[in-house]
Amino acid sequence: MARIAVVGGDGIGPEVTAQAIKVIRAVLPDVETVDYDLGATRYHRTGEVLPDSVRDELAGFDAILLGAVGDPSVPPGVLERGLLLKMRFDFDQYVNLRPSKLWPGTTGPLGAVKPGEIDFVVVREGTEGLYAGAGGVLHRGTPAEVATEESLNTRHGVERVIRDAFARAQRRERRKVTLVHKTNVLTHAGGLWARTFEAVKADFPDVTTEYQHVDAAAMFMVTAPARYDVVVTDNLFGDILTDIAAAVTGGIGLAASGCINPERRFPSMFEPVHGSAPDIAGKGVADPVAAVLSASLLLDHLGHADAAARVTGAVAAELAARTPGAPLRTADIGDRLAAAAAS
Amino acid sequence: MARIAVVGGDGIGPEVTAQAIKVIRAVLPDVETVDYDLGATRYHRTGEVLPDSVRDELAGFDAILLGAVGDPSVPPGVLERGLLLKMRFDFDQYVNLRPSKLWPGTTGPLGAVKPGEIDFVVVREGTEGLYAGAGGVLHRGTPAEVATEESLNTRHGVERVIRDAFARAQRRERRKVTLVHKTNVLTHAGGLWARTFEAVKADFPDVTTEYQHVDAAAMFMVTAPARYDVVVTDNLFGDILTDIAAAVTGGIGLAASGCINPERRFPSMFEPVHGSAPDIAGKGVADPVAAVLSASLLLDHLGHADAAARVTGAVAAELAARTPGAPLRTADIGDRLAAAAAS
Ligand SMILES: CC(C)[C@H](C(=O)O)[C@@H](O)C(=O)O
Ligand SMILES: CC(C)[C@H](C(=O)O)[C@@H](O)C(=O)O
Repeated sequence: MARIAVVGGDGIGPEVTAQAIKVIRAVLPDVETVDYDLGATRYHRTGEVLPDSVRDELAGFDAILLGAVGDPSVPPGVLERGLLLKMRFDFDQYVNLRPSKLWPGTTGPLGAVKPGEIDFVVVREGTEGLYAGAGGVLHRGTPAEVATEESLNTRHGVERVIRDAFARAQRRERRKVTLVHKTNVLTHAGGLWARTFEAVKADFPDVTTEYQHVDAAAMFMVTAPARYDVVVTDNLFGDILTDIAAAVTGGIGLAASGCINPERRFPSMFEPVHGSAPDIAGKGVADPVAAVLSASLLLDHLGHADAAARVTGAVAAELAARTPGAPLRTADIGDRLAAAAAS
Repeated sequence: MARIAVVGGDGIGPEVTAQAIKVIRAVLPDVETVDYDLGATRYHRTGEVLPDSVRDELAGFDAILLGAVGDPSVPPGVLERGLLLKMRFDFDQYVNLRPSKLWPGTTGPLGAVKPGEIDFVVVREGTEGLYAGAGGVLHRGTPAEVATEESLNTRHGVERVIRDAFARAQRRERRKVTLVHKTNVLTHAGGLWARTFEAVKADFPDVTTEYQHVDAAAMFMVTAPARYDVVVTDNLFGDILTDIAAAVTGGIGLAASGCINPERRFPSMFEPVHGSAPDIAGKGVADPVAAVLSASLLLDHLGHADAAARVTGAVAAELAARTPGAPLRTADIGDRLAAAAAS
């Protein structure tokens, strides 16, 4: 039996995770879920973000499904660093996986790109880089103020995520990995990434490779997104590139992600890329598709590749059948997806 | 009389700067130019990138026009750090200015965006952040390797570039400044940027403002680029965002930039955003428009607003008259632009 912790979070988060769980149950009846009320609401009520006791409880689950956390009323960084990033780091979720696909039936903003032409996955490093939180401030609020941020990179951390990217590429049709960094400016970390990439590549002779600077990649993701298959990159570059990827595939409304500990020593966390969207919260009009696609990644990670594929298939059918501009009802979409995935 | 140092550089660089100088002469006859052969060729011949003596000579010019430096034969970082970034830092070019415009007659990749709808400028910080070169490597090439990159930010550096952005916004029609950072993760540097932005804003009550995280901005630059007027941001974020901006306005073939020392204590440097394009070098088919638009920024910076506007007008007419797909001849375009700007 699979045990899943559900962190609905804020805004539309709980609405979309409810649908995702509905769909998971339709394909995997033997699942136990436990809800956790983390997010802005709990923070305002108790001042707590992620108490150690809750973190330790979460560690016992097979996976975590997260909706969205965040609210304008919470100072920037509190929930991000205290909850999202804490889980990524404490649970060693070093593979931040973000598939990008222009689904048949949907239209992206790029005039010349047809559905099906964009189909790549970004393997973003999840536990290092500028996200380590290293840095500080001196003379705060004075004309002499200095602030630093330090990007920390280890061979250990870089090699494992690059290996994961190559292994994923090997299971895909085009078998291609693009390394993205900024080796011409960030020569210290860039050198580590580039040398590690060359070393790992030798173990995957059937995978083709290329390197791009992050600025060039940001451009090509707009002008030539079809060229990518698997993209592996640093934590911050991955943050930016996956939002561009979401944009060219029709917006973050459809983008799914998994923060994965591939060895399953810790639970992995799956979440839609979109935020809590407080403006439409509680109205039952949020699109649960990104949460449902995140559930599909969750199923796949837990070894239920078949169930995962049925969920993805249901989403593909749903999107292909949509009338552009027609109003969305969150629960109806969940019902339809659950029924389609079950059958 | 204006004295301009011309660093043609590598690949198509010298071809496009030749046209840009032709156009400058057409609108500003009283100009002296001196060529400097910096770039990959000189590096291979002498091992030198930017000798101090040359740097000191360059310091005496009113401005520098650069074509493109770089060649696959030079290790990453050598010319970038040793030449481009050295000039930006030594000449205190703290405003890296990158206008983005979808020109009438051109088409960008975004199906729903019409020419004229995109017209913003990115004011990228040019002398701080991750470009400072701080960081290092321990245990290189071993499993224990660690590499760091440090982003250095000062109130001095952040305030002056934010002020410049507000002053520019005040001279534009929409009078809006968007600050882009990643305050929810990079809390140290992000805090400095956000607090400085709030402080400067008080001095510009007629300018409206907004804040966006860099990942959201990368997305909106694709899905809603018309919303931007002036964008002010950190060195690395600016590097990435301006390539997205170039992508949505038809590619880096048309993008111009200026590395500006607004006080004119040091020469400012103007360069097309595109690279040296070794594959088409020497064939006379490179598009000089980005170099010519950079020349227009140069003229404007030196106080010749009228001449600058004539050059921009000539480019607008040239682009509006182009037949998509028709072959380009570098020198012919330069001749046409010079004639149009002169008349
Ligand atoms: C909310 C924020 C901390 C997070 C990140 O920067 O990783 C988000 O942008 C994401 O991409 O998951
Ligand atoms: C060549 C490189 C050092 C440079 C940068 O990163 O600033 C370039 O990408 C640019 O945008 O001017």
